[in-house]
Amino acid sequence: MKAVDFTSIKINGGFWKEKQDLVREVTINAVYDRFKESGRIDAFNFDSGVKAHFFWDSDVAKWIESVAYLSTEKREPALEAIVDEIVDNIEKYRDECGYFNIYHMTIEPENRLKIRDHHELYCLGHLIEAGVAYYKATGKDKLLKLMCDYTDYVEKRFKIDKNTPFTTPGHEEIELALVKLYDVTGEKRYLELSRFFVDERGTKSEELCDWMARSYNQSHAPVREQDTAEGHAVRAVYLYCAMADLALKYNDEALKNACRKIFDNIINKRMYITGGIGSSAFGEAFTVDYDLPNLTAYTESCAAIGLALFAHRMLLLENDAKYADTIERVIYNGFLSSFSLDGDKFFYCNPLEILPYMLTKDTSQNEKNSLHLPVTRRQKEFECSCCPPNITRFVPTIANFMYTCDDDTIYVHQYMQSEAQIALGDKKIKIEQKTLYPTNGKIEIKVDTPCKVAVRIPDYCRDKGSSGYEIFEITDPSSPICLDFDLTPRFVCANPEVLADADKIALARGPVVYCMEGIDNEGHLRSIVLDTSSQITESENAELGVIALTLDAYQRKPIASLYSTKINDTYKTKATLIPFYAFANREECEMQVWHNYR
Amino acid sequence: MKAVDFTSIKINGGFWKEKQDLVREVTINAVYDRFKESGRIDAFNFDSGVKAHFFWDSDVAKWIESVAYLSTEKREPALEAIVDEIVDNIEKYRDECGYFNIYHMTIEPENRLKIRDHHELYCLGHLIEAGVAYYKATGKDKLLKLMCDYTDYVEKRFKIDKNTPFTTPGHEEIELALVKLYDVTGEKRYLELSRFFVDERGTKSEELCDWMARSYNQSHAPVREQDTAEGHAVRAVYLYCAMADLALKYNDEALKNACRKIFDNIINKRMYITGGIGSSAFGEAFTVDYDLPNLTAYTESCAAIGLALFAHRMLLLENDAKYADTIERVIYNGFLSSFSLDGDKFFYCNPLEILPYMLTKDTSQNEKNSLHLPVTRRQKEFECSCCPPNITRFVPTIANFMYTCDDDTIYVHQYMQSEAQIALGDKKIKIEQKTLYPTNGKIEIKVDTPCKVAVRIPDYCRDKGSSGYEIFEITDPSSPICLDFDLTPRFVCANPEVLADADKIALARGPVVYCMEGIDNEGHLRSIVLDTSSQITESENAELGVIALTLDAYQRKPIASLYSTKINDTYKTKATLIPFYAFANREECEMQVWHNYR
Repeated sequence: MKAVDFTSIKINGGFWKEKQDLVREVTINAVYDRFKESGRIDAFNFDSGVKAHFFWDSDVAKWIESVAYLSTEKREPALEAIVDEIVDNIEKYRDECGYFNIYHMTIEPENRLKIRDHHELYCLGHLIEAGVAYYKATGKDKLLKLMCDYTDYVEKRFKIDKNTPFTTPGHEEIELALVKLYDVTGEKRYLELSRFFVDERGTKSEELCDWMARSYNQSHAPVREQDTAEGHAVRAVYLYCAMADLALKYNDEALKNACRKIFDNIINKRMYITGGIGSSAFGEAFTVDYDLPNLTAYTESCAAIGLALFAHRMLLLENDAKYADTIERVIYNGFLSSFSLDGDKFFYCNPLEILPYMLTKDTSQNEKNSLHLPVTRRQKEFECSCCPPNITRFVPTIANFMYTCDDDTIYVHQYMQSEAQIALGDKKIKIEQKTLYPTNGKIEIKVDTPCKVAVRIPDYCRDKGSSGYEIFEITDPSSPICLDFDLTPRFVCANPEVLADADKIALARGPVVYCMEGIDNEGHLRSIVLDTSSQITESENAELGVIALTLDAYQRKPIASLYSTKINDTYKTKATLIPFYAFANREECEMQVWHNYR
Repeated sequence: MKAVDFTSIKINGGFWKEKQDLVREVTINAVYDRFKESGRIDAFNFDSGVKAHFFWDSDVAKWIESVAYLSTEKREPALEAIVDEIVDNIEKYRDECGYFNIYHMTIEPENRLKIRDHHELYCLGHLIEAGVAYYKATGKDKLLKLMCDYTDYVEKRFKIDKNTPFTTPGHEEIELALVKLYDVTGEKRYLELSRFFVDERGTKSEELCDWMARSYNQSHAPVREQDTAEGHAVRAVYLYCAMADLALKYNDEALKNACRKIFDNIINKRMYITGGIGSSAFGEAFTVDYDLPNLTAYTESCAAIGLALFAHRMLLLENDAKYADTIERVIYNGFLSSFSLDGDKFFYCNPLEILPYMLTKDTSQNEKNSLHLPVTRRQKEFECSCCPPNITRFVPTIANFMYTCDDDTIYVHQYMQSEAQIALGDKKIKIEQKTLYPTNGKIEIKVDTPCKVAVRIPDYCRDKGSSGYEIFEITDPSSPICLDFDLTPRFVCANPEVLADADKIALARGPVVYCMEGIDNEGHLRSIVLDTSSQITESENAELGVIALTLDAYQRKPIASLYSTKINDTYKTKATLIPFYAFANREECEMQVWHNYR
């Protein structure tokens, strides 16, 4: 299966156009402003005296990459000028070997490439992705070439001279970046270097001393023997992306199999209904099967992004609807919740329950008990600010997930109003989608040339056992494919093994998972019991620009004593739900995705 | 109201006789064996070379106190010989000032009485309690006199010379011990010293630097201004005991009021249904109102004991049934769960839910996330072993909670088969109880002399608004008072503000709270839904020697996928419950107190 790059697709209306416009108009600048304020931009000028952190290169690299993606459709001269200055600084301050790292060159030069968890290769990976993207979008190749030099040095040190104290970076990223570098340069040794890093992982006994050195960064076993998603969730999915890339490039069956097992482990046992992954604040990590606590869900925004990227690569390996289903689950829920409706505030964690009182001083779940805790409100910035620039590079490229193709069929995986040019064998086909999805389920798909079009029937409305794709043989391009997916709100329950959701239900409408917020409901959300026999009414919430759902419910009457025998003392009320992605855009209040029901 | 000391009551059958026999035959020796093995006993011989911990004096002191209480009814020469040797060592190694502390005299002599949280006065308090008890039980006054000397030195340093870097010990205990020392010696200055320590608390700005120095040990405000239970739960209730003691001795209305407010805050907002207190592992502490998580409940055994001791002192201040109700809640639940049915294993924490998988490596709730976590099984020993010897001193004195009296009325607060001698005005009255309570609700109370007897009608079977005591004017001593409390199993719900228990029910039978254990039930307990319309059947569980309860329930059918729309896919089953106090006496399994229901 071939990928269809976002550069050949123009999203020209509907749900994602709004998000892309928001990122172009607001988010990209908001992220820049915070980076400027924090010193991240000036830190590339070593004479600025700014004290850098060892992951700052990567933050700025992702911002550069975002600018590149935005520039594909419409150049942004002001942003480009900033990028060019940063790139000039890299050229100016890099050393004679090509090495560049704002932290290690200014603060800890004696430990260059010596500390496994100091993120130098992670930073390089993001700089490579930025260089590749910036070159493809603008034709400017300076950053790309600088990163080729740096990569050559890395190859020499790690793979040829073998004189580094570790052989697998603590935070994966360079592995997938090297595949992109290979794709753009055609230099096979970049691909080989990626495979070297991937193959080394989990083979060194000196890296197995404890959980942090072992499972935390997926070094618990050689990659082809891994069959569960382990450790730091972002590191994990970045590795899995590279594994899937290499499995495809080398047609490596063992690697394919490992990818399949890991992917299935995630979606069958370790993924929240929102597509969020990484249950535990400790290590920002996957834990064990079915361990999916809601209140303390870590579910980092970057991890959701990484899961979509992994699923997309799996889709290139084999056309199974589960991959596209997972992408859809992520992009409308656990990813989309990560930035505010006004575009300039971000969640690092995207928990499935918020109890504001829990975050006050001295409660049982407060910061003294947990290493990190989901906050109740999105923030303008983070000390560890990996998520915001990941969002700005993800939204402009969202169309990457729409199509794949083989010699005679276009596979339609995601529905977004758009116009695309796809090379199918020797035909160049224009394919258009008209849709307000997921606001409603109607989609009109039109091609300008006879061909086969396979459309994904989303998991929430397809028959069990069906392949997930319905194939249309288009002979008359003037008559479009008309789809109308049933978005009637539905109740969802979790596997009984998920103890956090036992005897609870969630609500979803199409691909969008819903939640209750305190502001729309009476009393504590945990005390509300939804009446599943009730009619569910849809209405517009104009403030949020979303469709709200309302149904009958029961709420407990207040009682004076701490314990009482009046067990069914309830009154009838209404429960109102909004899309999960829209939560926390009004005043601070409770939120929950899993509800009591009768 | 006057106390009726356990020394004038003989428990001669029924529920508590078994527990007292168990402590005499098993537990007291089990605790000694562990203390011997860990070096705690030998550490009193400074020539032994044992490296002591700074709380070890207190552990052994509580064991000595336990031996004393057991010796009241029947001397234990072998145990006494051990005690006498320890006391001889204290006499031998104490210094010329009377000061004695196995840790600070052998390991850190330069910091004697300099470090607020090094527990020297906590240890002294327990040694005072031991000395008082041992003297009263055996007539041997050596330990008592040694502790008087040490106390005199403490009084000089803290209250007269005022040359210590702190004025309130980090862990309260000496305050209540000094009241006992005053009672046995008649030396008013010991009572004054207690009041000094209590009055100092919360008045020093240098002790207010952070939560640990402030709320953790109840130094957030002067005691008379405190109205909520704060900080480390054991420290808190020990302080409140002393406050109630002093309120009584000095007829101090402001102190009484603070005690009332704090007590009401506990029982109305910060107490588990089991009588456990202290929700958070961090600081082993109270948190905020209604914050009562079940899985991570800290609920230290010592804190439950301390709450009963506080409630008992409140009962001496004012005869309100809520105090005796609370004692009953504690002794049959959160306290009784703290030791195994075979008497030699202990819980430090008594959580209201156990999910064994949660305690395996790398889960979201594992030890890396929480400072301490409830373990699933009782243990033979703990590094911090405050609880086991607290249990051994509590059970032999359980009769302390039975009676109080004023000039003409005996108040019966707790029901235990027993025979007692009570001085009522100038009459000496023999009062007998015949009962198997709480196995059944029948109690026969007989006095040998005409008098008034007020019996507490337990909260679970009294009318709302009643005083809680029914007064019988006994004119004919040959006819007993016959009570028959209704122990029909009942459902209990928590206040809707308790979010951990929202839409859940518990079961109780009389004073005994019940729980489900995995071993008696199918599948995960969180997936079981109790049918509240079902008949509840009582049956004997011979293995545990308890009454089990069985009722209809629903269990979720297994499903393959992680999320599904089959929300009501259940099958009918039976749920079986046992008393909470008897949990974890069989194989490791799930346990829960709060259940789903329909």
